[in-house]
Amino acid sequence: MDSILIHANTHTYPVYIGENIRFQLQELLPKSYDSILIITDDHVARLYLDDLSNSLEGSSVHTAIIPAGEQSKSIHSFYELHSQAIRYGLDRSSLIIALGGGVVGDVAGFVAATYMRGIDFVQVPTTVLAHDSSVGGKVAINHESGKNLIGNFYSPIMVLYDVSTLHTLPLKELRSGYAEIMKEAFLADEKLLWDVMELDLTHNDNYERIRHLEKGIQIKANTVEQDEKEAGKRKFLNLGHTLGHAIEAELGYGSITHGEAVAIGLLFAIDVSEKEYAINLHADKLFTWLTNNHYPLNMDNVCIEALLKRMKMDKKATNQRIQMVLLEEMSKPVLIEIEDTTLRSYIESFFAKLQNWYGH
Amino acid sequence: MDSILIHANTHTYPVYIGENIRFQLQELLPKSYDSILIITDDHVARLYLDDLSNSLEGSSVHTAIIPAGEQSKSIHSFYELHSQAIRYGLDRSSLIIALGGGVVGDVAGFVAATYMRGIDFVQVPTTVLAHDSSVGGKVAINHESGKNLIGNFYSPIMVLYDVSTLHTLPLKELRSGYAEIMKEAFLADEKLLWDVMELDLTHNDNYERIRHLEKGIQIKANTVEQDEKEAGKRKFLNLGHTLGHAIEAELGYGSITHGEAVAIGLLFAIDVSEKEYAINLHADKLFTWLTNNHYPLNMDNVCIEALLKRMKMDKKATNQRIQMVLLEEMSKPVLIEIEDTTLRSYIESFFAKLQNWYGH
Ligand SMILES: NC(=O)c1ccc[n+]([C@@H]2O[C@H](COP(=O)([O-])OP(=O)(O)OC[C@H]3O[C@@H](n4cnc5c(N)ncnc54)[C@H](O)[C@@H]3O)[C@@H](O)[C@H]2O)c1
Ligand SMILES: NC(=O)c1ccc[n+]([C@@H]2O[C@H](COP(=O)([O-])OP(=O)(O)OC[C@H]3O[C@@H](n4cnc5c(N)ncnc54)[C@H](O)[C@@H]3O)[C@@H](O)[C@H]2O)c1
Ligand SMILES: [Zn+2]
Ligand SMILES: [Zn+2]
Repeated sequence: MDSILIHANTHTYPVYIGENIRFQLQELLPKSYDSILIITDDHVARLYLDDLSNSLEGSSVHTAIIPAGEQSKSIHSFYELHSQAIRYGLDRSSLIIALGGGVVGDVAGFVAATYMRGIDFVQVPTTVLAHDSSVGGKVAINHESGKNLIGNFYSPIMVLYDVSTLHTLPLKELRSGYAEIMKEAFLADEKLLWDVMELDLTHNDNYERIRHLEKGIQIKANTVEQDEKEAGKRKFLNLGHTLGHAIEAELGYGSITHGEAVAIGLLFAIDVSEKEYAINLHADKLFTWLTNNHYPLNMDNVCIEALLKRMKMDKKATNQRIQMVLLEEMSKPVLIEIEDTTLRSYIESFFAKLQNWYGH
Repeated sequence: MDSILIHANTHTYPVYIGENIRFQLQELLPKSYDSILIITDDHVARLYLDDLSNSLEGSSVHTAIIPAGEQSKSIHSFYELHSQAIRYGLDRSSLIIALGGGVVGDVAGFVAATYMRGIDFVQVPTTVLAHDSSVGGKVAINHESGKNLIGNFYSPIMVLYDVSTLHTLPLKELRSGYAEIMKEAFLADEKLLWDVMELDLTHNDNYERIRHLEKGIQIKANTVEQDEKEAGKRKFLNLGHTLGHAIEAELGYGSITHGEAVAIGLLFAIDVSEKEYAINLHADKLFTWLTNNHYPLNMDNVCIEALLKRMKMDKKATNQRIQMVLLEEMSKPVLIEIEDTTLRSYIESFFAKLQNWYGH
């Protein structure tokens, strides 16, 4: 079992990562708790809830199960989870454990952040994508008008990442999580990049996954920690997300995973970077890797105008121009502002290129 | 205009206090904002909303009005206020202003704390009680099972306390706020105590109110700041609240104000302290002051068993015994744990004393 220390604003916490470590939860907890509430979704409950609750002795352990899927990041689930926490008699010194992917982590984390103004919270991620949410302290639910609009910054006191749980993860969820690892590799670790490029997602083993997840977590942690000093660095983590978010929203959440959309956005950002800075970032190799691993890349029926509209809606968050992360060179991200018209022509030629690539 | 600096965990902020300073809001803001949302209730909106929004130039100012009263501290209002913030296009660099009493401050503060994971927040208190919420960073909404169960610690960037707005405050709300000032005086400032004892609530002027509010705010600030070093000091602020909360809940929120219930609880805590420590804390003078100012003290129809049950429900928050703050001597609070049976006999003799006092 390895561990990585994360330095959050409020406190430092360990991310433990290893094989079958879910059975060691009890001994890894920094203190004992009278009452514990495990929050999980109905898919994960069937697979790992017993393992986890059986490994907790001496506490009264309660469970709350939400339906799997993004729709559980709602104000309704949020309030209902509070009701359950109250019903089970949780108090200020109780613990909430989030067992599951990013959805469970985000909603359970926000419940922990707000229950009696904040109680302890442990994350037990069971997806690859959730490595991303184990650092940075973002917890949130969705508003009907947009994702993650209601939330807090609230870090767990510990993360227990048992990669053995990833064996039951559907392939499209593996793809989703590995797109973010690929993004992190482009941002900061070329060695990781070539390592993942060799990977067949259907065949990788625990040992490889531990290595990739650790590097991903470390890259995110470095970026977030640096951001406290150099404001803005955190935005680099949006590499691939300008177009990615728009595609995700346009195709409808659920029809494509977050990471699958980010994969397309990443390929686009690499393609634009190659043109802007006249460099070779191996967009073609990334494309090959994505197709070999069956990422959905067909954009034939996606309307570019609609995507642009969504990106413009997003931009409100800062000012009047769309922001995008590019790579000046490998491992050297830059944040640029881009005109609508320039962006449109980039997307047009990228979509044409995708069709072309497919043509082969 | 005076100002008091409050040292919160996350940042230091000023509480400005003075006459008619609501018109100076713009110049007192530490920076300018593109978008501002003023949240207020329908009583206060009629009286002071125009003053405030007119004093803000150069920003686009939006307003959201919630119904006056505790029922607006609901998950429903919370979500609805988020909807309005989104509709008005607020972003991460926008400002929320809470104009009103503790209800508006608590719900608007919680919206600010959670909108896009936290945006700037200014409090403009218009009740005496809200001096209490201008320090300590507690923001919350209620759950149907209990008050303030869902919330955060989130401090404003500035508080603007215009005592001129207190002239329209109903007398029972003045009583409510002054009960907390009386509590603070017993906790830490005997001079303030005798000062307030001289006061006829229907006749005090701005100058006196500024003095009392400043001292109250300072006492709360000192206690909260010390609590970071000496955990537990913050609990002293619960003087009068063990019985107070139970009375408030038992009589039904709305039929008696928070402070009116605390006033009875305070008198009780002083009475018990006098017996426990064989000292004179002038319970009789406090009783006289409360009756002269028409605080409701008649407990004839209140069931002691029901009160005890509520106090026991409260105690879950810590452990198996009811906690209560007493005074060992003037300005020397102590936290004790008390047996149900002892507590019952204290309440019985206190209620008998109240009847007796009334008899004269
Ligand atoms: N807080 C952050 O910093 C952050 C970062 C990235 C993403 N997110 C959020 O994370 C969410 C997406 O996370 P996700 O991709 O993990 O989605 P998810 O939690 O919905 O999990 C994906 C699916 O896999 C199932 N599943 C989870 N673990 C499994 C396992 N071990 N075996 C079999 N099935 C399993 C789930 O039940 C679900 O159906 C989004 O809401 C996103 O906003 C948050
Ligand atoms: N956050 C904290 O630390 C803290 C501390 C104490 C109390 N509180 C909370 O504060 C709330 C009670 O606060 P409150 O007593 O100010 O109640 P409130 O906000 O309901 O105000 C009382 C009434 O007075 C009206 N009003 C307010 N200002 C007025 C004015 N200037 N002129 C005329 N009418 C006016 C309001 O519309 C309301 O009807 C409770 O919900 C309590 O939990 C919070
Ligand atoms: Zn992402
Ligand atoms: Zn109070």
